[in-house]
Amino acid sequence: MATEDVHADTEHLVHSDDPSHPANHICTLCAKFYQHGWVTGTGGGTSIRKDDLLYIAPSGVQKELMQPTDMFVMDFNTKEYLRKPKVYKPSACTPLFYAAFERGAGCCIHTHSQWAVLVTLLVERDFGSSACFEIEEIEQIKGIPKGRGKQGNLGYFERLRIPIIENTAHEEDLTESLEAAMEKYPDTYAVLVRRHGIYVWGDNVHKAKTQCESIDYILQLAVEMHKLGLPWVKS
Amino acid sequence: MATEDVHADTEHLVHSDDPSHPANHICTLCAKFYQHGWVTGTGGGTSIRKDDLLYIAPSGVQKELMQPTDMFVMDFNTKEYLRKPKVYKPSACTPLFYAAFERGAGCCIHTHSQWAVLVTLLVERDFGSSACFEIEEIEQIKGIPKGRGKQGNLGYFERLRIPIIENTAHEEDLTESLEAAMEKYPDTYAVLVRRHGIYVWGDNVHKAKTQCESIDYILQLAVEMHKLGLPWVKS
Amino acid sequence: MATEDVHADTEHLVHSDDPSHPANHICTLCAKFYQHGWVTGTGGGTSIRKDDLLYIAPSGVQKELMQPTDMFVMDFNTKEYLRKPKVYKPSACTPLFYAAFERGAGCCIHTHSQWAVLVTLLVERDFGSSACFEIEEIEQIKGIPKGRGKQGNLGYFERLRIPIIENTAHEEDLTESLEAAMEKYPDTYAVLVRRHGIYVWGDNVHKAKTQCESIDYILQLAVEMHKLGLPWVKS
Amino acid sequence: MATEDVHADTEHLVHSDDPSHPANHICTLCAKFYQHGWVTGTGGGTSIRKDDLLYIAPSGVQKELMQPTDMFVMDFNTKEYLRKPKVYKPSACTPLFYAAFERGAGCCIHTHSQWAVLVTLLVERDFGSSACFEIEEIEQIKGIPKGRGKQGNLGYFERLRIPIIENTAHEEDLTESLEAAMEKYPDTYAVLVRRHGIYVWGDNVHKAKTQCESIDYILQLAVEMHKLGLPWVKS
Repeated sequence: MATEDVHADTEHLVHSDDPSHPANHICTLCAKFYQHGWVTGTGGGTSIRKDDLLYIAPSGVQKELMQPTDMFVMDFNTKEYLRKPKVYKPSACTPLFYAAFERGAGCCIHTHSQWAVLVTLLVERDFGSSACFEIEEIEQIKGIPKGRGKQGNLGYFERLRIPIIENTAHEEDLTESLEAAMEKYPDTYAVLVRRHGIYVWGDNVHKAKTQCESIDYILQLAVEMHKLGLPWVKS
Repeated sequence: MATEDVHADTEHLVHSDDPSHPANHICTLCAKFYQHGWVTGTGGGTSIRKDDLLYIAPSGVQKELMQPTDMFVMDFNTKEYLRKPKVYKPSACTPLFYAAFERGAGCCIHTHSQWAVLVTLLVERDFGSSACFEIEEIEQIKGIPKGRGKQGNLGYFERLRIPIIENTAHEEDLTESLEAAMEKYPDTYAVLVRRHGIYVWGDNVHKAKTQCESIDYILQLAVEMHKLGLPWVKS
Repeated sequence: MATEDVHADTEHLVHSDDPSHPANHICTLCAKFYQHGWVTGTGGGTSIRKDDLLYIAPSGVQKELMQPTDMFVMDFNTKEYLRKPKVYKPSACTPLFYAAFERGAGCCIHTHSQWAVLVTLLVERDFGSSACFEIEEIEQIKGIPKGRGKQGNLGYFERLRIPIIENTAHEEDLTESLEAAMEKYPDTYAVLVRRHGIYVWGDNVHKAKTQCESIDYILQLAVEMHKLGLPWVKS
Repeated sequence: MATEDVHADTEHLVHSDDPSHPANHICTLCAKFYQHGWVTGTGGGTSIRKDDLLYIAPSGVQKELMQPTDMFVMDFNTKEYLRKPKVYKPSACTPLFYAAFERGAGCCIHTHSQWAVLVTLLVERDFGSSACFEIEEIEQIKGIPKGRGKQGNLGYFERLRIPIIENTAHEEDLTESLEAAMEKYPDTYAVLVRRHGIYVWGDNVHKAKTQCESIDYILQLAVEMHKLGLPWVKS
């Protein structure tokens, strides 16, 4: 894999026998996410922070076929690419992932889950375009933490709120409204993007992945509940 | 895997080349259950009794990635942990699994199946919160035994009844109502938990797994029948 | 695998390195059918005829875990079991499979597909209990042969008709009505069983498997069409 | 694999250790497409152009089990088969694939996706038989190129239009109307076939596969939107 001469030799950044090394881990995660229908086509993406290095899946690739050598590596402090595979473009999600890393995330996942898209459309029609997705009294909510710096996860009787931002023509232009949503909902670990998908992050890979699964489960359940005329919150 | 010094050396309890050894079996079962959407995030759990040892998957782990060394092992008679992996917390399902083991179960499975959640919501709305799920004249019902100590399985013309209990803030607080449901429906091998999922058990691993599959099939079918306006029981 | 002393040594009947040997083939097919949701729990079954030997999956086993040594082998002419694994019961489907083999089938598949069950319920409600399932002008219909002894497959503009028989308390009691349906619809390669599933057969394994897939595809499509208010036949 | 004596020795055309060699690549792609439900039974097909050679999956085979030696190889210029496995018939899709290759495609995929079939039925009922499928403001649209010879992909605010042609009794008879649709919609990379499925092509294998996935995602989403009463285009 030819890379630009950003730094003399950067191959050591992506070569490891450890399956939990970010370059390897992103590949196994994305192969699993492909099975979930989260990264169809070349959609979606995943990024892991390890110390001050950000590992980011490239743009425009089949996510289930990625190799560790496909990874971009960015310095968190300088925002400079330490490694840039020549044949790929950096992910347009990079500034959005970065916004999560700045707020303490260790891993950030972007999916095009159809359940996410459908929920944003249902919320818009039923509650208005400014509303966020809200649901309560579903056990799986307990898979989502209370918020950054807070102890423990949401309780069964607490309401899960996920803000929704409007989609833009270019993915990087979502950054401002994503950050605004993060400020307005400081406890959230996810932001829905209308007609597009969702960003989910967590303190580490384990948390980001399981929180993304829990939220996707809840979004799917919410769509099925809507089909059956079952309300998301008790009035 | 560091474990607490409950007993000097407990590693032999979880090391075996036999795929049907509980520590191995729980791992392969949970990997399969992950494919079924039963243990999304870190939800759900599985426990196997072997003689007087209870093997229990830990809390808060990705169920499809578990290793035999992740298992908790409890003495059935003393309820004392013989093995307790330091990095994990015991499953909050433990007292619920225990209630099934006390009633003769050899294996107990807890899933967050969306079909289970949706059926509990449909029953509540259509028949009231005190009702249990009832269905009849579906061939797959014949996959469920008549009841503990009774010979054979339910017949095609018999009605399957699965009690539903209300969810609580903390999983262990379900124990009392689960046991009450087990007393009220002594023939049942499953209890639904509203807005949460289901507990299914069986005399051994084979039975618990196939009964859980049969019941989940029936719950999925029931949701689809409801969407199509087809009644669950003949009036 | 201990077998009854029907014949001195019958192990050679199920030991082969050839993946297309019936004892091996039934195992790989059933593992695939499990993924399709056709043999959930211990439901469904598969049987292959090779010359005058019938290979039949046993009753009550997890179909995705079967081993070649689990197979029953029956002599087609004498209906005598040449091989009978002691730990299993013969499949209750055996007389139904036999009815297909008598009519020239080389392989017969029984599934508990939910699409089959739902279609039988929709037909009963919308067209009456005596009606058969009918659909036309769907490309996949071309995957089904015109009928035994007839050249080629159904055309796109031809109507696919699959008879439906009523379920009975005991699977073997379906034989008479299955045979009656085979007589009334001599061109059919499938019979639906109300609230139960479907039997599909074919001249050989390839045909039975692909016809079963094509029919299941059509049944699933028919359920989705019904949800969307789209008619199955042009009036 | 016996082949007709079209040319003395054509085995070298399909033997390669390179997984991206067309004969190998078609096999791995079709195994994946089987998982997607695109090539159920023996439906659907895939063809890759490499220089002036067209590699085409045969007719009537189980697509998930294909071997490289099953491939037909045609000379693009002479339309002559260079390799023709004796046991198979050439795919009836061949002239349709050829129409795409004539217009610059490097790979063409034909699926029987149920979402494609359902969308063609919904469009016919709701907008008339002459209408094409139209959708806008869905992020995944950005996975589809603007059109042959045009730079880049569709924008989020641009409308995706996929023409629909009527099905015919014989697949090869679709060629004329497929070509007419290609002329009328010169920017399209896909043509839907009513009650049948879809043809999707791309400049190379990567593009054809990811475009087919993106379009299938959009078609599935469109069906789910219709169930929920959500419009495909803003009026």
